[in-house]
Amino acid sequence: MNGRFLVLEGIDGCGKTTQLRALAEWLPGSGLMPPASALVCTREPGGTPLGRALRQLLLQPPEGAAPVPRSELLLYAADRAQHVDTLVRPALAAGDWVLSDRFSGSTAAYQGSGRGFDPALIATLERIATAGLRPDLCIWLDLPPALAITRRRAQGDPDDRIEAEGLAFLERVRAGFADLAQAPGWRRLAADGAPGAVQDALRDLLRQELS
Amino acid sequence: MNGRFLVLEGIDGCGKTTQLRALAEWLPGSGLMPPASALVCTREPGGTPLGRALRQLLLQPPEGAAPVPRSELLLYAADRAQHVDTLVRPALAAGDWVLSDRFSGSTAAYQGSGRGFDPALIATLERIATAGLRPDLCIWLDLPPALAITRRRAQGDPDDRIEAEGLAFLERVRAGFADLAQAPGWRRLAADGAPGAVQDALRDLLRQELS
Repeated sequence: MNGRFLVLEGIDGCGKTTQLRALAEWLPGSGLMPPASALVCTREPGGTPLGRALRQLLLQPPEGAAPVPRSELLLYAADRAQHVDTLVRPALAAGDWVLSDRFSGSTAAYQGSGRGFDPALIATLERIATAGLRPDLCIWLDLPPALAITRRRAQGDPDDRIEAEGLAFLERVRAGFADLAQAPGWRRLAADGAPGAVQDALRDLLRQELS
Repeated sequence: MNGRFLVLEGIDGCGKTTQLRALAEWLPGSGLMPPASALVCTREPGGTPLGRALRQLLLQPPEGAAPVPRSELLLYAADRAQHVDTLVRPALAAGDWVLSDRFSGSTAAYQGSGRGFDPALIATLERIATAGLRPDLCIWLDLPPALAITRRRAQGDPDDRIEAEGLAFLERVRAGFADLAQAPGWRRLAADGAPGAVQDALRDLLRQELS
């Protein structure tokens, strides 16, 4: 595989989607990517046709169909297996770069640290879901949960199921990301600045890590 | 838990659904169940509201959304976790009996023996999906795949995705059920007779196992 696999992680409202969009405009002309490589922007859950149906069930389930925690964990894993096999690996094998809004880190932080699932169980499921694929670089956009919630409300975002779990849950998720970000292949970026400033820092970080 | 958990297993077309329906009419008045117990009939995939959405994705996925094998395995596990937590366990805890069209045996036979997934991986996922719940009795309705396919066509059943894999696949699945049926808690019943004769044999078997 010649492509590179880059992931933005963080709680909802941290600015991932905005930053990813700006990054996607800059990256192809940045000089970092080989000229023949395309950039594929994607997300989890929902990066594939199957994943879009699963995203709906996970984040806006019909009345009475909200997944129990074990089922939720397994549905995220199913979304990831489909994403890896049908989108991420084929793109990397073609030499393209993949930029994903969330990947395995979100499962470790939300279902592991947030919901309290055994890390060994999460790791086992991740091996099944990813079949061993690891990102080249994960960037954690770190924003305090209280600020993320304020931002989302200001944007008129509907509270989805996970956000509705409240501040204590999101604080545990943030602590989970903080642990993950100690590992090789991870970088933390403060996301409490203005969007333009965060984007500048993100581009600096990518130049530094990928040149 | 005071209720009993009974499962019918076998390939599609073996008569599971017909037999389950007839069993459901007979069982409550059979004298086998305590008078205060209700009988809950259910199935996998699709025994819950979430499960019904997953059943659709598994058996009749939209164009381009057919799950890859790892994703399929994880979706069946997600359906089972939801089924166990929101339907099967609560019913058993209330002293009711549960009669299910398929359970873990189908995953071992279809995804394990049929698709060739590592049995250890299947076992790990099953521990997550069932959280340790085991049926009191699994009955394998054994019908040769060629005969099952003929029956389904005669009934005008559309070939779903798994049936469309063909005879060699279904022969491996049957061999998988044959292995499973050696274990304690399993019984094999020949299902090539007339429906009434199979039902009589099924009732005899239940009287023998549950009295």
